[in-house]
Amino acid sequence: MSETMKQIVLASRPNGVPTPANFRLEEAPLPIPAEGEVLVRVEYMSLDPYMRGRMDDAKSYAANIPVDSKMEGGSVGKIIASNADGFEIGDFVMGSFGWATHSVATAVGLAKIDPHAAPITYSLGVLGMPGFTGWYGLSELGKPKSGETLVVAAATGPVGSMVGQLAKSRGLHTVGIAGGPTKCKIAVEHFGFDVCLDHHAYATASELRKAIKEAAPQGIDIYFENVGGKVLEAVMPLMNQHGRIPVCGMISWYNEGGLGADAVERTLTAPKIWRTILVNFLSVNGFIISNHWNRMGDFHKEVGPMIANGTVKVQEDITIGLENAPDAFIKLLTGGNIGKAIIKVI
Amino acid sequence: MSETMKQIVLASRPNGVPTPANFRLEEAPLPIPAEGEVLVRVEYMSLDPYMRGRMDDAKSYAANIPVDSKMEGGSVGKIIASNADGFEIGDFVMGSFGWATHSVATAVGLAKIDPHAAPITYSLGVLGMPGFTGWYGLSELGKPKSGETLVVAAATGPVGSMVGQLAKSRGLHTVGIAGGPTKCKIAVEHFGFDVCLDHHAYATASELRKAIKEAAPQGIDIYFENVGGKVLEAVMPLMNQHGRIPVCGMISWYNEGGLGADAVERTLTAPKIWRTILVNFLSVNGFIISNHWNRMGDFHKEVGPMIANGTVKVQEDITIGLENAPDAFIKLLTGGNIGKAIIKVI
Repeated sequence: MSETMKQIVLASRPNGVPTPANFRLEEAPLPIPAEGEVLVRVEYMSLDPYMRGRMDDAKSYAANIPVDSKMEGGSVGKIIASNADGFEIGDFVMGSFGWATHSVATAVGLAKIDPHAAPITYSLGVLGMPGFTGWYGLSELGKPKSGETLVVAAATGPVGSMVGQLAKSRGLHTVGIAGGPTKCKIAVEHFGFDVCLDHHAYATASELRKAIKEAAPQGIDIYFENVGGKVLEAVMPLMNQHGRIPVCGMISWYNEGGLGADAVERTLTAPKIWRTILVNFLSVNGFIISNHWNRMGDFHKEVGPMIANGTVKVQEDITIGLENAPDAFIKLLTGGNIGKAIIKVI
Repeated sequence: MSETMKQIVLASRPNGVPTPANFRLEEAPLPIPAEGEVLVRVEYMSLDPYMRGRMDDAKSYAANIPVDSKMEGGSVGKIIASNADGFEIGDFVMGSFGWATHSVATAVGLAKIDPHAAPITYSLGVLGMPGFTGWYGLSELGKPKSGETLVVAAATGPVGSMVGQLAKSRGLHTVGIAGGPTKCKIAVEHFGFDVCLDHHAYATASELRKAIKEAAPQGIDIYFENVGGKVLEAVMPLMNQHGRIPVCGMISWYNEGGLGADAVERTLTAPKIWRTILVNFLSVNGFIISNHWNRMGDFHKEVGPMIANGTVKVQEDITIGLENAPDAFIKLLTGGNIGKAIIKVI
């Protein structure tokens, strides 16, 4: 066992899209697990859009990461030392281990993973937080009905692809939106969307709106909101009466703190939004999946077999090396990855 | 029986706040009820903010009123001729009779009223569409819990006063917002709000926000949205996590078609709204009460006795004469009335 570990800390708060200078790779002494704790060697680390919010000062779900502290995030790893009952050396566990090669953790924050049931990386994507977010938001807030039309952006991402595949399996007409022809091809051919539109091909929200209108001739019943910005503006006027908008994220606004003057210019004005909500009797619901962990069992029960029988497909984008996490994260925020972004921590 | 009737038609579409020139009083031949129809002499006619939307071209709940056609609206009246089974001369009925002294109607669109159960005007306000809107939106979408805090504007209006009184009776801390000291006094002393703030006393949304924050020190759990504009902007940042926003109207924006550049300037930008919905897990639901008539019985069962025992108070603002309806309606849209606006049709 080496006596040091590596970790990546927040070096400075980003202004807009993060740059490599906002991160710093550090060595630190290997922590020793106290009573009730385990020491984990991280194997795979998840990269998720929400992490961008944690880098800011603005109020969000959770406390922000202090400058010079370790970047946070979920990971899977193997226990290499244990002072906690019920956890053995060699057990695979998922937890909030941060951007690091090693971490100590208490039993409370650990979930055991069976490495024989599915690849352990699935716990970070299709069977983990992102897949669960898509399942919960669609099922509980989207309330899909056969014959309806669903639109979701980031269609090849771990949330969007889950939403699209579940909706399709429930008989909905599914329209994905993604950045670039490659992603759109994957959305249709791999994930089974009925249509996928490349938002890069449309300069303005109103051009994108025209294309969505053609792809969704019956209007939109569910817009699963995970990007904001141009897509949201394009979609809102196309919502059918009694439409549902689960809101789980707005990646397109994360890099501007949601406040940029530019954002005001190019998005629907506030009165327009509220008027649309009112006259179409829309139901708009913000949610974060961590408030609904109690439903994880239901999610696994439904989606586990769908992965096994091929109804739900998986796409992972694995980058090798902790030191490459900042670049991979920047790529994620600018749409450069395809599929669930994961770091293989070596 | 006179051989003619009077009615008010939409003379031209308003640009902003309607003016008397947008309306025209006309005489018309008294219609003769066909088979299955009745002829009604209108006694009281309701004035409601939603009527402003019908005067525009923009998409709203329902078809707009064509220029030169009769203004629409709900009324109560007495049957003076009947060709419909089950309806007798002398019966009191409620229906969509428009801005007119007389109307023919088919049985399908009529609801009989018992004039001995309550004053017949109550069918237009506290026991009619506005009261029902407040009850439904609060109960079904607001999901009030004892100890929570509610904010509602137009606190002395028929919707706001119902919402405030029901919330109070369910153990909530209630903050009303109204225009002017007289209305605020009525809100607290007559309708029992814990606090009422005069929005005229605060020049900007942020000043109003400060006052609301003092009046609602635990934050806001339910914002019943019936006005939009400055109040909405003041309230949004004060919403507690898991807050609920039933949206039934936005009177402050009706006169600008919801699109004015000025409205953009003085309201929260779109990204801010969506960010607030997301990070506070808000539930925002637009609704129109006409989709929920099947709950009218439940409403009357709960609220009827509350009116009888004085828990729910009534305030009506009755103007005499059909020809005064345009002025009274303009007064309503500019906050000049106190209580439910009704025309006594003579």
